[in-house]
Amino acid sequence: MKVTIIGLGLIGGSMAIALRKAGLASELIGIDRNPEHARMAIELGLVDKILTEDIALPLSDLVILAIPVNATCAFLPSVLDAVNENATVIDTGSTKNLICKSVVNNPRRGQFVASHPIAGTEYSGPQAAFFGLFEGKTNIICEQEKSSEASLHIAKKIFNILKLKTIFMDPVEHDKHVAYVSHLSHVSSFLLGQTVLDMEKDEKNIFNLAGSGFASTVRLAKSSPDMWAPIFEQNAEYLGQALAEYIMHLQRFQYHLMKREGKELHKMLTKANEIKRVLG
Amino acid sequence: MKVTIIGLGLIGGSMAIALRKAGLASELIGIDRNPEHARMAIELGLVDKILTEDIALPLSDLVILAIPVNATCAFLPSVLDAVNENATVIDTGSTKNLICKSVVNNPRRGQFVASHPIAGTEYSGPQAAFFGLFEGKTNIICEQEKSSEASLHIAKKIFNILKLKTIFMDPVEHDKHVAYVSHLSHVSSFLLGQTVLDMEKDEKNIFNLAGSGFASTVRLAKSSPDMWAPIFEQNAEYLGQALAEYIMHLQRFQYHLMKREGKELHKMLTKANEIKRVLG
Repeated sequence: MKVTIIGLGLIGGSMAIALRKAGLASELIGIDRNPEHARMAIELGLVDKILTEDIALPLSDLVILAIPVNATCAFLPSVLDAVNENATVIDTGSTKNLICKSVVNNPRRGQFVASHPIAGTEYSGPQAAFFGLFEGKTNIICEQEKSSEASLHIAKKIFNILKLKTIFMDPVEHDKHVAYVSHLSHVSSFLLGQTVLDMEKDEKNIFNLAGSGFASTVRLAKSSPDMWAPIFEQNAEYLGQALAEYIMHLQRFQYHLMKREGKELHKMLTKANEIKRVLG
Repeated sequence: MKVTIIGLGLIGGSMAIALRKAGLASELIGIDRNPEHARMAIELGLVDKILTEDIALPLSDLVILAIPVNATCAFLPSVLDAVNENATVIDTGSTKNLICKSVVNNPRRGQFVASHPIAGTEYSGPQAAFFGLFEGKTNIICEQEKSSEASLHIAKKIFNILKLKTIFMDPVEHDKHVAYVSHLSHVSSFLLGQTVLDMEKDEKNIFNLAGSGFASTVRLAKSSPDMWAPIFEQNAEYLGQALAEYIMHLQRFQYHLMKREGKELHKMLTKANEIKRVLG
């Protein structure tokens, strides 16, 4: 099976490693508009060769898009146009509604499987890729009824190789849920980082006082703006709701804090502690 | 050296383990107002015996307080009154200004070393204690000029055994810095947990969609309300400032989000990325 991966970063690169290890790809082709990433992907052995899309797409059995969600929306229709009629196309974007909409009337819609493997680290680029990134993580397929049986079969085979647990969801429901569980976490972390940076002009203090708590809470603030700004923008409606609720909770906390109402603060913390039971 | 530890939780218990291993304590005495914790501390071998304070304090060479900061403020003066005149008393609280103030006019002030070892996990109680908790972490001593040379000497010896790196700071400066770097992280995490709990009535979705990002950002929301509510209350002034700034950043982000200003969002994320360089 000839596999083309568009976007040779953390996600695309880690998929390449797993697919090669599984012996699934007779040839692994890479496409990346960043020449430095393309060069590194070859050097690291992630893919066998770098081709342009006009050459790579028509000869591929499977195309995986692992690029920012705005690029996926812009690029996906022409990818479907360019592949042969037996090829399967999978995306990996962290939003699903606009991506699904971008090909809703495409005659090749059946060849596309809209997917979101929920995995990642705060690092990006080919050098961040590693074997096992997806193991045991959740993958969400949206609009599976719009994918052909053949393409769904291929996609599930790939996700099994990656050891992802696949569930199915409506794209709007998907975007709503990840707004709260994933995207809001990233926003809270980015702006926590900014708040502390603003305050701590003497940077040595950040490092000294970080303990282990700050480091883990702010970890996601190291994530790639190129990847996350488009995700936030595409999910503005639901992320906006989640943010409004988060800010409301913070303000209620601050109200009790300013009034030195220790008992109310204790109540709020105890309620939030419930997350312990849920996450196990 | 007879050592009494008041509060046999994560901090007190982990100190007991390290001091025993170093062979420093000829006797390790525990005090805990929670009989279940006292029983477990004996069972786990953290301390040799449990005594009441009226018996333990006069015979101790070193007393370590590892209890919530409001309890430290309330209890510390009577601890200083009860120990013999050669004993050293150390606290471990995450706020320092009110604790220092609670003994500012105490004739035994010299015997006290105000300390904050910045270490911990989201778990609490004797069963959470482990060897190595403090290794390589930062410890802050406040008002060292108010501690006697003998007591400072003992305290530094203890902190060296725990492999803490000690720095010195004014108590108000301490509270201001930890408000941003530690306390705000905890507030952001607690209320992120609450926001997601509110939204996700179907708890299965939280677990499924958590990926690795949410889990680390919300980790601190599992922390003990008994410990954290008093810290927040005691540091209300500086934590309130930090929170105000955090909320302001979140609202600015939301403004750009609602206007779908991807470039502005990208700019904000890129600025926050700076935390990468600072944390290393």
